[in-house]
Amino acid sequence: MKNKKPINMPPNKSQYENCKIKQFDRALKLDSTEELKSLQIAYNTYGTLNKDKSNAVMVCHALTGDQYLIGHNPITNNGGWWELMVGSGKAVDTDKFFVICPNVLGGCAGTTGPSSLNPETARPYGLDFPVITISDMVRAQVMLLDYLGIDRLLTVMGGSMGGMQALCWAAEYPDRVAGCIPIASTWRHSAQNIAFHEVGRQAIMADLAWNKGNYYEKEQRPSAGLAVARMAAHITYMSEKTLTERFGRNLQDREKLGFGFDADFQIESYLRHQGISFVERYDANSYLYITRATDYYDLSAGHGSLSEAFEGTKTRFCVLSFDTDWLYTTQESRTLMRALNASKAHVSFADLSMDKGHDSFLLDCPEMFDMVSGFLSATMKSLDRGGNL
Amino acid sequence: MKNKKPINMPPNKSQYENCKIKQFDRALKLDSTEELKSLQIAYNTYGTLNKDKSNAVMVCHALTGDQYLIGHNPITNNGGWWELMVGSGKAVDTDKFFVICPNVLGGCAGTTGPSSLNPETARPYGLDFPVITISDMVRAQVMLLDYLGIDRLLTVMGGSMGGMQALCWAAEYPDRVAGCIPIASTWRHSAQNIAFHEVGRQAIMADLAWNKGNYYEKEQRPSAGLAVARMAAHITYMSEKTLTERFGRNLQDREKLGFGFDADFQIESYLRHQGISFVERYDANSYLYITRATDYYDLSAGHGSLSEAFEGTKTRFCVLSFDTDWLYTTQESRTLMRALNASKAHVSFADLSMDKGHDSFLLDCPEMFDMVSGFLSATMKSLDRGGNL
Repeated sequence: MKNKKPINMPPNKSQYENCKIKQFDRALKLDSTEELKSLQIAYNTYGTLNKDKSNAVMVCHALTGDQYLIGHNPITNNGGWWELMVGSGKAVDTDKFFVICPNVLGGCAGTTGPSSLNPETARPYGLDFPVITISDMVRAQVMLLDYLGIDRLLTVMGGSMGGMQALCWAAEYPDRVAGCIPIASTWRHSAQNIAFHEVGRQAIMADLAWNKGNYYEKEQRPSAGLAVARMAAHITYMSEKTLTERFGRNLQDREKLGFGFDADFQIESYLRHQGISFVERYDANSYLYITRATDYYDLSAGHGSLSEAFEGTKTRFCVLSFDTDWLYTTQESRTLMRALNASKAHVSFADLSMDKGHDSFLLDCPEMFDMVSGFLSATMKSLDRGGNL
Repeated sequence: MKNKKPINMPPNKSQYENCKIKQFDRALKLDSTEELKSLQIAYNTYGTLNKDKSNAVMVCHALTGDQYLIGHNPITNNGGWWELMVGSGKAVDTDKFFVICPNVLGGCAGTTGPSSLNPETARPYGLDFPVITISDMVRAQVMLLDYLGIDRLLTVMGGSMGGMQALCWAAEYPDRVAGCIPIASTWRHSAQNIAFHEVGRQAIMADLAWNKGNYYEKEQRPSAGLAVARMAAHITYMSEKTLTERFGRNLQDREKLGFGFDADFQIESYLRHQGISFVERYDANSYLYITRATDYYDLSAGHGSLSEAFEGTKTRFCVLSFDTDWLYTTQESRTLMRALNASKAHVSFADLSMDKGHDSFLLDCPEMFDMVSGFLSATMKSLDRGGNL
């Protein structure tokens, strides 16, 4: 091995400046039966924890998200990814609630993942990082909650993979969550969901620069493969209608077809940009591990059936889907709702009408904000009345 | 350049054994304004041309299809790709009709394409091959029809990209087609259609072995990139229902999750197989050119509007779609039908109920066979009565 300074190894120092880091020097046992001997969790909190610690809301992020919910994000140099939902006077009101947002286990924004240093070798884990599950991500979040001294979350919530974590919390730690809001999410990854992720993984692994996961100390990263993976996934985040209305067959910076393989169409240019900008902020190995975790996710499998996963639960649920989401469809949320009904849980469900497909949960949807805000108030009131336990 | 025997250059000799080849030593002018100074077309015919040459049916193949409609296919070592539709006693009855199936321009099964020798350099074209359109494919087919001495086709038909060619025939050579059957097809490529193709092209071009299209004389082909492209496309050929029913979350050759990146799930194993077997029979550059041709396809653009494309046509149409096809949806076929109605064309339309998504046109669908068979008989009768001209 050449004596070269490790490069391309997220996260870098500047990322820590705008978040908190907690190092845990005890082991985390994983679903695979392997364990991480130590780990760190990067997270942000917003608002103030009240005296009886009853106003904590955990927001779990999606596949390639991070802990920067609001305010400056040093990775993207943009604002937070859920400023529309979270903040002073917003649905998740930081004047009322103490909001916690951790980077997921396996991620690349500060929480331990494949790009972190393996304490046993003092080199990046790469593929020596153990394969993790959504439950493992939640296990790490439980450690963080214990560290923060909070017994019970008012609500755990998230969109897409964030909703999967929220549902895992409710299924596996029912006493620790009064409310649960999965948005544009699902109770298990379908064959089509797995198929799209497998295309992405194959694209990364086909890139010679991937080098079986050992690229952190090399000049080259598997950027081309990761960009293709992102492009394929990005199509599933948008509705056909959005694509047609926003791009249609419009040409990019030209008046006629170019009769070549440059980006003639705006949609091509847009997708290429999505791919290229993604590789600047995300680690290819993390993409492998996190997509694998979602593919392994199936709440019904570990519990006999989906309704058994929530049997006897006192957690209140607010299940939200979008009518144009073809990645995690309304049908999946309806199946979840029926299972929750069968397990006699307290459930609200709404299928929200939005043009924009799966990504709608990140966008301006007043009906979603109203549902979330109302649900948080009702759950708080229910706790005040001594209910929900 | 090393003095090495060109390798990996389809088609090989054995492929010619089971088809006809016609060399044209005159120029084909292309939509790009470039021209091919000469070209060859590989094709098959089945059945017998009748005395007044009124029983010819041209079948146009889909994206990665070929001229081997029925009987032994020397490329795949399987049977023909439309044995369910074409043959003695089948819907396209070779006892009654003279069936012609040419490999498309730009393809890699014998018709001139990027893997063919460029007569000016005596080396494979690679990216020196001009970018072509669906109309250019049809122009080449017109040369073949002239050579065969046939003035008018009883019907031109095809599924998917085959349907695009059929519609181009009807729009651009209305006097030469009495009937037209586009199946599971569309009148223009949508933004989502283009997006999926762009992912495939980027996957190929990201493969270092692609080498800007110059790989025919190298040891390595861009197989990894082409396999990823095929995997992404293959997902769009199947309905979500098919994927769930056929694969679901079933594991492949194992009883438990493997906690690694091998193919745990049957759907992963299936997709990988689709990718790997595809690269054995298909040329990566042809994939670039043919997907580009479909992306450029928009019948409304060249004619003012879609209905103007068919104004005054005497061709009879039979438009068939499948209710679970999300690549070229029923909605697109309905739009086509309405445009044909507006141009006062004779149209039959059926949205067929099949579970299997886009690929249904290749499968056993008795209703489709009945529609095609009835349409061919009715068109033949209409000609006998002197109609349709």
